[in-house]
Amino acid sequence: MDKEYMKRAIELAKKGEGLTKPNPLVGAIIVKNNKVIGEGYHEFYGGPHAEVNAFRNATEDVKGAKMYVTLEPCSHYGKTPPCAKAIIENGIKEVVIGMKDPNPLVAGKGIKILEENGIKVSCGVLEDEVRQINDIFIKYITTKKPFCIMKTAMTMDGKIATYIGDSKWITNDLSRQYVHKIRNRVSAIMVGIGTVLADNPRLTTRLEDKIGSDPIRVIVDSKGRIPLEAEVLNIESNAKTIIVVIDKAGKEKIQAIKEKGAEVIIAPEKNGRVNLAYLMDELGKRDIDSVLLEGGSTLNFSALSERIVDKVITFIAPKLIGGETSKTPLGGEGIASMKDAIKLQNIKINTFGEDVMIEGKIVNNGQ
Amino acid sequence: MDKEYMKRAIELAKKGEGLTKPNPLVGAIIVKNNKVIGEGYHEFYGGPHAEVNAFRNATEDVKGAKMYVTLEPCSHYGKTPPCAKAIIENGIKEVVIGMKDPNPLVAGKGIKILEENGIKVSCGVLEDEVRQINDIFIKYITTKKPFCIMKTAMTMDGKIATYIGDSKWITNDLSRQYVHKIRNRVSAIMVGIGTVLADNPRLTTRLEDKIGSDPIRVIVDSKGRIPLEAEVLNIESNAKTIIVVIDKAGKEKIQAIKEKGAEVIIAPEKNGRVNLAYLMDELGKRDIDSVLLEGGSTLNFSALSERIVDKVITFIAPKLIGGETSKTPLGGEGIASMKDAIKLQNIKINTFGEDVMIEGKIVNNGQ
Repeated sequence: MDKEYMKRAIELAKKGEGLTKPNPLVGAIIVKNNKVIGEGYHEFYGGPHAEVNAFRNATEDVKGAKMYVTLEPCSHYGKTPPCAKAIIENGIKEVVIGMKDPNPLVAGKGIKILEENGIKVSCGVLEDEVRQINDIFIKYITTKKPFCIMKTAMTMDGKIATYIGDSKWITNDLSRQYVHKIRNRVSAIMVGIGTVLADNPRLTTRLEDKIGSDPIRVIVDSKGRIPLEAEVLNIESNAKTIIVVIDKAGKEKIQAIKEKGAEVIIAPEKNGRVNLAYLMDELGKRDIDSVLLEGGSTLNFSALSERIVDKVITFIAPKLIGGETSKTPLGGEGIASMKDAIKLQNIKINTFGEDVMIEGKIVNNGQ
Repeated sequence: MDKEYMKRAIELAKKGEGLTKPNPLVGAIIVKNNKVIGEGYHEFYGGPHAEVNAFRNATEDVKGAKMYVTLEPCSHYGKTPPCAKAIIENGIKEVVIGMKDPNPLVAGKGIKILEENGIKVSCGVLEDEVRQINDIFIKYITTKKPFCIMKTAMTMDGKIATYIGDSKWITNDLSRQYVHKIRNRVSAIMVGIGTVLADNPRLTTRLEDKIGSDPIRVIVDSKGRIPLEAEVLNIESNAKTIIVVIDKAGKEKIQAIKEKGAEVIIAPEKNGRVNLAYLMDELGKRDIDSVLLEGGSTLNFSALSERIVDKVITFIAPKLIGGETSKTPLGGEGIASMKDAIKLQNIKINTFGEDVMIEGKIVNNGQ
């Protein structure tokens, strides 16, 4: 039954999606006499932790009960008092944990306090699933670099636009709506200057049923080519725009961009372009825990080559357009040998109408 | 219950896959007092029809029973006596049919004979599913052109080879094994001379568990560039090789190819290349009811442009290789506007390990 209860706790945790950042998603349930008597999850950043909510929602006396919680209970005073303390005070006799706190500074401390107080603790139940829902949190807390999701959309013959550059639309409404849900969950969205010049996008979150939170817009624009009238420099938004340049962009243009209200990051160069690994460090310093990369084929390939990408999400529409020169999701120089191909793992498939979404993780990116 | 019984008849029909060509797949069951008392299917070309096998396998007296058959019973003497006659003689009182015989010369005749003999007939139960299992047969019998399946295999960034042309292997063993199953089912396999020059393939059927039947190999080689030592001109196989050229290939080369034992079709040209629509007519005349197109990006785009493709099967491997110049499944000039993209219908998704297969039909190709 441990797995069943943990599965339920994971379901609860997911309810906080998009609302807890930069905190993790956490769910907790309290079980007594094989009956769930309390459920809770971390609902929003700054709000009570999952364990506390489970106690609050308990319908019976929790003394002597068993608690299932997706993440190791905290042991330190942060925005709320430590959960380990609450568990002890409430007389819980056994705690089942999905995964240890990934924060190296506190990992294991919560478990230790519980055990020192005579509570039986087991850890690692459905750990893979728990890691999955907190992939962003885990990467950020352990590396201080944002979790980077590369999103592409292509036809069934691998094109992101026709040979004259028409890309409206490759995917259907349902797929595009899902992308806005992802935008709502990440801290930042990143594109190259090519995308800005070609499509002049707003890069905001547009949800059908509720108000979305815009991600910070990051434009990789090595030479400072962005027109001052570009949408991203002029829209009303609850998030800022960051233009990333190298020295070559010139002081005058950098000043003009700043005057439009955008932040400018001057990055060192790599092969004449923005050093993306450096940029990730800089974004991490700005509390950006996640980046959705919706780049063109050049930026995408640079991002993969510099190993900043953690996850790839590809939408495939059942359409064919051909064209020897039509752009594909990944350009650049490319990899010469098939055996050196970048391999994706944990493949998941989803459908949106007749569009197919394939998602996979790139491992060994410092995680 | 009609649909349930028809579903069972379709399952039976599928057992003949690859063995009945150019005949259709047909399944039949006999039901009496809500009990299946006989089942049969068309097992191999030249063998008894499904209805006859169902009678042979009947475990009770079939008089007064109801028959479910995927395809309209035949009314003419072919390699076997007409099934309509057998149904009447066996005293069947009602017949439920999946679809009318698609052969315009005989469509409706079987039904008419049954009805004239006092048998109740209904037609069109699960017709879409029945059409699906006989897509090759239906296209060929109604147009005398082969049903053409375009098969491609690409990385998740839409490439069929790295920028230096390495394509071994994009997909995994399971996917490649499935392709050999498709080869076993079709009459012919078609590639362009580019593929022969690059990979020198054998284009034979290699199955793990049984002896496969090789498809006829069709090489589109407009200018007659094939080396006489190419595998397809020298292998032992139960099927012939056809080299398709235009006049430009030159009499001498054509003669040399013929001396290697291959057939040569001299096709009229279209934009300096083999006219593929003409070629399909020629292949149809040679009793080729189905062609698996495993072309490179140029031949594939020509095939789509000339509207000879009926179905597209795409394997997508969870790998990324990039490369601005890496080949994609469809090249050529391409389609300029997204709204003119070739759309696929009846999308089906399958997985082979972590590879994803997407399949769809192109409609309005003379079907």
